[in-house]
Amino acid sequence: MDFNEIIESIRTFKGVTRKHSIADVREKLKDIYNISGNVYLAFGDDAAAVDIGNNQLMLLATDGIWGSLMSVDPWWSGYCSVLVNVNDIAAMGGLPMGMTNVLSSSDSDITSQIMDGIKEGVKKFGVPMVGGHTHPDTPYNALDVAISGIVDKDAIIPSCGAKKDDNVIVAIDLDGQVYPGTDINWDTTSDKTPQYVQDQIKIMNTIGKKQLVHAGKDISNPGIVGTLGMLLEASNMGADIDMEKIPRADNIDWIQWFKMYPGSAFVLTAPEETTDEAIRLLNNSHINAECIGKVTDNHKLSMSYKNDKKTVFDFSSEIIMGFSEDK
Amino acid sequence: MDFNEIIESIRTFKGVTRKHSIADVREKLKDIYNISGNVYLAFGDDAAAVDIGNNQLMLLATDGIWGSLMSVDPWWSGYCSVLVNVNDIAAMGGLPMGMTNVLSSSDSDITSQIMDGIKEGVKKFGVPMVGGHTHPDTPYNALDVAISGIVDKDAIIPSCGAKKDDNVIVAIDLDGQVYPGTDINWDTTSDKTPQYVQDQIKIMNTIGKKQLVHAGKDISNPGIVGTLGMLLEASNMGADIDMEKIPRADNIDWIQWFKMYPGSAFVLTAPEETTDEAIRLLNNSHINAECIGKVTDNHKLSMSYKNDKKTVFDFSSEIIMGFSEDK
Repeated sequence: MDFNEIIESIRTFKGVTRKHSIADVREKLKDIYNISGNVYLAFGDDAAAVDIGNNQLMLLATDGIWGSLMSVDPWWSGYCSVLVNVNDIAAMGGLPMGMTNVLSSSDSDITSQIMDGIKEGVKKFGVPMVGGHTHPDTPYNALDVAISGIVDKDAIIPSCGAKKDDNVIVAIDLDGQVYPGTDINWDTTSDKTPQYVQDQIKIMNTIGKKQLVHAGKDISNPGIVGTLGMLLEASNMGADIDMEKIPRADNIDWIQWFKMYPGSAFVLTAPEETTDEAIRLLNNSHINAECIGKVTDNHKLSMSYKNDKKTVFDFSSEIIMGFSEDK
Repeated sequence: MDFNEIIESIRTFKGVTRKHSIADVREKLKDIYNISGNVYLAFGDDAAAVDIGNNQLMLLATDGIWGSLMSVDPWWSGYCSVLVNVNDIAAMGGLPMGMTNVLSSSDSDITSQIMDGIKEGVKKFGVPMVGGHTHPDTPYNALDVAISGIVDKDAIIPSCGAKKDDNVIVAIDLDGQVYPGTDINWDTTSDKTPQYVQDQIKIMNTIGKKQLVHAGKDISNPGIVGTLGMLLEASNMGADIDMEKIPRADNIDWIQWFKMYPGSAFVLTAPEETTDEAIRLLNNSHINAECIGKVTDNHKLSMSYKNDKKTVFDFSSEIIMGFSEDK
């Protein structure tokens, strides 16, 4: 196993590099993003948060799927559109309340399979699809889903809250399999019961309410280390982590593992005194959690393997998203 | 002026007929639309409503723009994506809290103009765009915006609440102009101040809180009469209206007027005792409101002109959306 190759594979992974464009969108909207004065968190987090009074925040997120995945496996695309949005709300410690969708396709067979996938996602995660519309005459297939949730103001888990000396926790449901036809979807939900997956969503709400963690993010396209990098960048921090402590499924090599989009997985940072309780709750919900290192204030994400230590991202000279969250 | 021609023009207007597909979407999702048990209103209204406790409902809506309008006038497309979504929340008596968007375009010049239009919409309506993402490599231009808002449970204005003998109110800001390059956009906002347009949005929240109306809907693609038809269909009611009482801009003929998508306009139904107060509040906000007829229980929308009376829609034998809202 070549440790250099692993590091280079993470650094050049498209799931990481394509996040650079977030900086452009944010730059365009920065002077007006809080036009109403009640935006609590916006760009750089899994979901934006808007103060609606009563100590409650409304969470808003959106994710789109288009192109090859939709043609290869329309059903899975529909299902995943629910999964990724629900995880965005869970990562903030929130409870997902409802979704809307826009479906564009002129192929009625593909449309039907996508809708079946969405329906299965709705049943599995228990979040209603309350509206949407269809462009039935587009020369392409695309599916965009928006989700809204709620969270108590003092229970929110932001990406930008990591503090020096926090423990870094990686939590992944290891009971899964690579979804057929994909190399990078670690499917942990399609063969589980609704109760099982909904308990995993709710445990993040419990962790938020108990204020056990300072920061959290769901592991998505950028993979485990890329997602941790985004959390640290948003928090204006760094970390030292030990690769071999990262929970990993049997028979998957590190390079492939670090590109996986898992069905239920989070990176979190927690102070020493609440780390064990957070890990215990995650493990109880079948999300295998381990403390893999410490948050530092040196603005580098460094990873160790045996006696070797490499810098994965140096935020003082490079970017993932290109900004730390305004706090 | 040929009254028959006016009636036929409304009945065959694409803005009305394309609403038929809502029935298909609803049919596909009907057994799971309330999977969480807290969906208060869904398909057939301007926005869905989900119970979030504390006597509050979360409102969710989404609207998409694609194709010709985006190439013809990208700036206006971006601006309108905000306008139509904000009006969906206002029509429910709600306060818009935040939006997200998905923008698909491979043309950086078009993308830039769309973003400028969105920014102007955000500034004008005072609702933040808190997130979104871009598909920068699609072979088409499309813009989808989702919005969430809140409303007190006892202040919501549904489409489905019209009651027999209610007065039918049509309210339209007449101070506008046909937007250049379109035949059917009655622009009443682009030259107004943010205060002016935001007061118009908030007056619907006031009307909801004072419980002055039983039903309401913003006038959108189906035009004045088509939108009223949808409200009546959702309410499982009919109405007798008098064409000449409908507020109309000078120098626009009826056929064109009935195809207009106005910037700020609503159809409402109100009991006799609160009609005057609703009309007064709307007029104070520069939305010219008139009582144009009565709700009936005969499931027909009939329109009179001088001594002639015609059926525009007969809901016992034809559909617009194809269902009345479950109450």
